[in-house]
Amino acid sequence: MVRNKGGKYKHEYKQKAIPLTVVKRLPVYQRLLAELAARDVERVSSRELATQMKIDPSQVRQDLSLFGSFGQQGYGYRVRYLLNELNKILGLNTGTKLVLVGGGHLGRAIANYGNFVKWGFTIKAIFDRDPQVIGLTIAGLTVRDVRELTPYLRAEPVEIGIICTPAPVAQEVADQLVAGGIKGIWNFAPVALRVPETVCVEHVHLGESLMTLSFMLKQRQEESTGPKK
Amino acid sequence: MVRNKGGKYKHEYKQKAIPLTVVKRLPVYQRLLAELAARDVERVSSRELATQMKIDPSQVRQDLSLFGSFGQQGYGYRVRYLLNELNKILGLNTGTKLVLVGGGHLGRAIANYGNFVKWGFTIKAIFDRDPQVIGLTIAGLTVRDVRELTPYLRAEPVEIGIICTPAPVAQEVADQLVAGGIKGIWNFAPVALRVPETVCVEHVHLGESLMTLSFMLKQRQEESTGPKK
Repeated sequence: MVRNKGGKYKHEYKQKAIPLTVVKRLPVYQRLLAELAARDVERVSSRELATQMKIDPSQVRQDLSLFGSFGQQGYGYRVRYLLNELNKILGLNTGTKLVLVGGGHLGRAIANYGNFVKWGFTIKAIFDRDPQVIGLTIAGLTVRDVRELTPYLRAEPVEIGIICTPAPVAQEVADQLVAGGIKGIWNFAPVALRVPETVCVEHVHLGESLMTLSFMLKQRQEESTGPKK
Repeated sequence: MVRNKGGKYKHEYKQKAIPLTVVKRLPVYQRLLAELAARDVERVSSRELATQMKIDPSQVRQDLSLFGSFGQQGYGYRVRYLLNELNKILGLNTGTKLVLVGGGHLGRAIANYGNFVKWGFTIKAIFDRDPQVIGLTIAGLTVRDVRELTPYLRAEPVEIGIICTPAPVAQEVADQLVAGGIKGIWNFAPVALRVPETVCVEHVHLGESLMTLSFMLKQRQEESTGPKK
């Protein structure tokens, strides 16, 4: 992936740069379309998608046009077709394999999250360093000793490593994942990871949406009590 | 909060509409500034913030100017001052009270997430409907029966309710939170909630960042093997 100055990603479909803000919206389109498909809705307009996403309809059309010609004026988008295309664009349903490190509460919640299977992601193994956790069964898998992590990955190629450990050990785990050939890290530990440029990291900041909620509540409260002078 | 067509929020500071994309970036600024402040960095340029956020420096200046005149040309932003202002804007450190419903793995992970306390959020009570979970101690709190939820909220006003229940019961819990006077819901259950317009909902979609990671990995792989013809 080539990232240029503005945080854009070069995309193969049209060899155009995809802005990071668009990349971040792709899973939202996927989710909305999956919900429509589940309700057997056949088509959807850019306006309907835009309303749900709180963006302008023209932005929806522009985003999706980066990947192909999916919509028809006056008709909208065919839900199942566009969902299929988005699944391909996002690399879903391609049998992506993951390992999870950290069998605490968050790790167990993630391991039991049913949607992953629906999207074609499979957690192949779970690792922990706590002797009381090693050997337990989580989501049908026996937790392994984290010391086996790198050897395991060398024997069983896996694309993505999930880090659900406490912050102080997350970097060490990331190093072991990288040593084992992992190309993507989904990091829930509240610490920035140093990894080679060839490795992609998605850092989940759980608190960000709580801050957004706090901001919205504060706004609303100020509106009801009148703006400060 | 007044939301107009383009998904913008009217903001009291200058009575300007704050675009939702800017609202979503505020916690990121807060986090980056908190990291800088923790390292005793005194000032930061819009360019440095922009690089970390993968947006343009002009966007950083534009975002922050919506809330006041914080930066000086050629000097940048004073880290501690701007962090303080952002904390105020986000409503942090104001003693916001929360309740948590659902004492499963995710609920326990959230209850034990240390940063909330740092930001001035306090979980006052935890509720569950499982008799095996009621009475347990999670993060120093004894789990209560969810049937006590609405009466509890009527006696003890709380701003935010966190839903960590399975999807099928999330709507019922949301109704109980609303009946108890809750104004904000932080929803981890994978289901859209129906609430009155006076209630703000932040829905956490855990899988979205995994899809983003999947997309980036696919892009990178296609670049190394050459674009498809």
